[in-house]
Amino acid sequence: MTETWVRNCWYVAAPAHEIGRELLARTFLNTPVVLFRREDGTAVALEDRCSHRFLPLSKGFLVGDRVQCGYHGMEFGCDGACEHVPGQKSIPPGADIKSFPIAEKWQFVWIWMGDAELADEDLIPDIPRNDHPDWTPIVGDTLYIRGDYRLFLDNLMDPSHVSFVHRTTLGTDDVAEIPQIASQDGDVVKVTRWILDRPVAPVYAKVSKLTRFGEFKDNVDRWQIMTFTAPHMVEVDMGSCLAGTGALDGDRSQGFELYSYNLITPETEKTSWYFWSHTRPFAHDNQELTDTIRANFIEAFMEDIDVIEGVQAGLDRHPHLTPVNIGVDGGAIRARRVIGKMIAEEEDLIAEQDAAQVHAAE
Amino acid sequence: MTETWVRNCWYVAAPAHEIGRELLARTFLNTPVVLFRREDGTAVALEDRCSHRFLPLSKGFLVGDRVQCGYHGMEFGCDGACEHVPGQKSIPPGADIKSFPIAEKWQFVWIWMGDAELADEDLIPDIPRNDHPDWTPIVGDTLYIRGDYRLFLDNLMDPSHVSFVHRTTLGTDDVAEIPQIASQDGDVVKVTRWILDRPVAPVYAKVSKLTRFGEFKDNVDRWQIMTFTAPHMVEVDMGSCLAGTGALDGDRSQGFELYSYNLITPETEKTSWYFWSHTRPFAHDNQELTDTIRANFIEAFMEDIDVIEGVQAGLDRHPHLTPVNIGVDGGAIRARRVIGKMIAEEEDLIAEQDAAQVHAAE
Amino acid sequence: MTETWVRNCWYVAAPAHEIGRELLARTFLNTPVVLFRREDGTAVALEDRCSHRFLPLSKGFLVGDRVQCGYHGMEFGCDGACEHVPGQKSIPPGADIKSFPIAEKWQFVWIWMGDAELADEDLIPDIPRNDHPDWTPIVGDTLYIRGDYRLFLDNLMDPSHVSFVHRTTLGTDDVAEIPQIASQDGDVVKVTRWILDRPVAPVYAKVSKLTRFGEFKDNVDRWQIMTFTAPHMVEVDMGSCLAGTGALDGDRSQGFELYSYNLITPETEKTSWYFWSHTRPFAHDNQELTDTIRANFIEAFMEDIDVIEGVQAGLDRHPHLTPVNIGVDGGAIRARRVIGKMIAEEEDLIAEQDAAQVHAAE
Repeated sequence: MTETWVRNCWYVAAPAHEIGRELLARTFLNTPVVLFRREDGTAVALEDRCSHRFLPLSKGFLVGDRVQCGYHGMEFGCDGACEHVPGQKSIPPGADIKSFPIAEKWQFVWIWMGDAELADEDLIPDIPRNDHPDWTPIVGDTLYIRGDYRLFLDNLMDPSHVSFVHRTTLGTDDVAEIPQIASQDGDVVKVTRWILDRPVAPVYAKVSKLTRFGEFKDNVDRWQIMTFTAPHMVEVDMGSCLAGTGALDGDRSQGFELYSYNLITPETEKTSWYFWSHTRPFAHDNQELTDTIRANFIEAFMEDIDVIEGVQAGLDRHPHLTPVNIGVDGGAIRARRVIGKMIAEEEDLIAEQDAAQVHAAE
Repeated sequence: MTETWVRNCWYVAAPAHEIGRELLARTFLNTPVVLFRREDGTAVALEDRCSHRFLPLSKGFLVGDRVQCGYHGMEFGCDGACEHVPGQKSIPPGADIKSFPIAEKWQFVWIWMGDAELADEDLIPDIPRNDHPDWTPIVGDTLYIRGDYRLFLDNLMDPSHVSFVHRTTLGTDDVAEIPQIASQDGDVVKVTRWILDRPVAPVYAKVSKLTRFGEFKDNVDRWQIMTFTAPHMVEVDMGSCLAGTGALDGDRSQGFELYSYNLITPETEKTSWYFWSHTRPFAHDNQELTDTIRANFIEAFMEDIDVIEGVQAGLDRHPHLTPVNIGVDGGAIRARRVIGKMIAEEEDLIAEQDAAQVHAAE
Repeated sequence: MTETWVRNCWYVAAPAHEIGRELLARTFLNTPVVLFRREDGTAVALEDRCSHRFLPLSKGFLVGDRVQCGYHGMEFGCDGACEHVPGQKSIPPGADIKSFPIAEKWQFVWIWMGDAELADEDLIPDIPRNDHPDWTPIVGDTLYIRGDYRLFLDNLMDPSHVSFVHRTTLGTDDVAEIPQIASQDGDVVKVTRWILDRPVAPVYAKVSKLTRFGEFKDNVDRWQIMTFTAPHMVEVDMGSCLAGTGALDGDRSQGFELYSYNLITPETEKTSWYFWSHTRPFAHDNQELTDTIRANFIEAFMEDIDVIEGVQAGLDRHPHLTPVNIGVDGGAIRARRVIGKMIAEEEDLIAEQDAAQVHAAE
């Protein structure tokens, strides 16, 4: 069976603040992993399995830079090598476990679940606003979804659902009919929607009140610009300015903009991890604003998760029916097509490597 | 695999009082359905699935007489036709969903899960006492059973279990040996048991005290007459009169009678919905009596459900053993035989239709 | 598929104190059993299934020495014979259920799940200290493990895990490197470890304080001697004496010894029952000591169960990988080899019996 995910890419394993000197168990692409930091602060990812009796290492202890199994005390180094077996001098063959390439960038810790030789840190997608003096990021705690990771990407690539799923937060009346435009440039897919001269959305009203812009009493021009970076990230450029003050032409001075970064990592075929940050280029020290953005967007995410889990359940109980596509799927369909192409290329690569091995052996 | 249920018949979907302007999700015969009433009060049943991404429609909203999906706002009419897709003018082919024939009668809402062309309201079984000025019905809330619907029919067609399952409610001592007589007339199966000149059962004692009959201090003649109407209904005619006052010959003036109607609808092969009403031809305005009957019978139903779920679990864990039949199974065996015959006839009908189609195509 | 357990042996069904005049449901070797005592106190084990509709008999009632089904009142004697069917005189063929050989010895009730003709009470393993005037036994309540019974035997046959699993109870620092010696004599496997001249373990310190030995202020010589009796029992001879007072040569007068008996009975391939007793030859009437031993060892067992369930989960999620053995597995590997040999012998016996039947039939 074809896999539903790309293997050779950097997935987010956790926001940087969640990994420390406690052992953290998390499964990615069906593989159980244990995460921690060395004494020098470097993040490490090992297979979450003692090679002896398969007790998850995350049930053990961190002793210096080694993980000690909680059953018989076998110790593993950060490269997965078994370095000590209590009661004996020698290490039995096959006792080493797998370690995974890991990198820390943009306030996230990234893991490479595929061929370790291909793990080039230059392939980590760009999120410069998470580390830029002009921008204040909010890096969220990990969220969990009982749904295929692609269902969350579908959701992120479609601004129209806001009117129905987020009635009390991001939605506004009567904008459901406003079209969104999907486009593609290589593997990058973009969806754009402009909502011109309409009342401000509830969340933006709250945000605005806490800033120099004050209450938006008049209508605004609002934009939602989603950019998909394969195979798992959606940047959302969103904001509102007073109507007619030039936002459509690039002048965002009469309102505000937020950028959110949304990264989905598959846990299994039907469960996923959701990682996110929100950044803003204003009101940097306003803690009340930070708290307001965080709380309101988490509320909206929970509405998304509820819908995505409903869709997963609906697909599961109708395995013989085919979903119908509609206009708003333009971005999601393009994004899935890019993912599908990457998976196919990986499988071709593996087939070529296998053929080369057979040839070399002959 | 042969199905375990008849498709072409009216099943109860809900008691009428449970369906309103809230979307109600309920699965029948493995098919998820959403139930609601139009603005004019008519009940409607649609497939509980948006054709777009399969989010259950029951997670959406009722907008006038349309169901609006909670994800992208697609709207479906009461016939299942997709009538609106936000953001576009046209409706994509295949967007319609299924609607189910529905009828309201005898204070129940009935659904037809089979071939809609065969859905004739005259086929709804008769429950006239639920709508008759001389009778006061109590229509219960829906109960749920983790067991094959036929296990509940077995239970209903067997008065003898009362002595063991309902010791504190319907049971009386020393009546377990009194025989019950099963008979069949066409597809109608009847089980009759008369318990003559014995102390009154605990529930009947409570009921009697609240009526003009007062406390039954002397023995009574008690009857239990179960009538099975295929494939899912059991009417129970039950009551007690002072012993020797002619009940056996039809004179029920020296005591009281109750009729209960019990309708079981399969949810899946191993789970079911239980719908019930109890009617009485006396003490119409006595609310305390109504409450007493309702509370005591629900207590007894819970005892039945506990046993039925135990039987289902017992059958599941011994798949290779065959149950042994005993005398009291006479009614249940006949009822199951009628159901089996109806299922076989349906399968023959489908095979004939298939053959006719092949013939027409040749 | 080869079974993972021996059938023809006495397994503990329950500690004697758990079986009485209430029906107790418990599954052994995938077979549901109902346990109770006759009016004369003798323990009985029947198949937990009414032959009529498969309601577990444990949901019924004990009437004298018969079990009465909670559905239709069918009654079964202690040999499994159906002795009464309410409402009829005759017993239908096939209505009898299975009974299991049962015996009570050493404060445990034992059950024989295999060929009843081979059930010889002389085959019950010896636990004389549970019934000896010089020893005070504590017989624990049944514990439940979500793991293969052999994983618990592995655990019991390995003293080295104490340093990692039981840090706060049985463990002491720096003893993990002290070797343990495994040996085998026929089907009996033994593991011995002596920890000489070290501080006392936390639990032993608590126990000692409550006895005439008082606080152990100086180092002790500590022993752990595990003896496996196939296929399910591990005796643990353990204790500590003041260092250098001759314990190694058999003089245990300057400290104390405890014997524990640990019996594991499979429920299913991946779940087990754990039965245990602890006996001591001192401070017989010291209730505080009894309570201390019981509470501390239950705490340690819970730590073991947590690890065993983690190992079972780890094995389940890596079905294609093979565990690596290390030195401390010497006892466990020998014990599993004995169990494997016994299972193979049973299968040969069954094959021989089958062949003999075929031969006789020809």
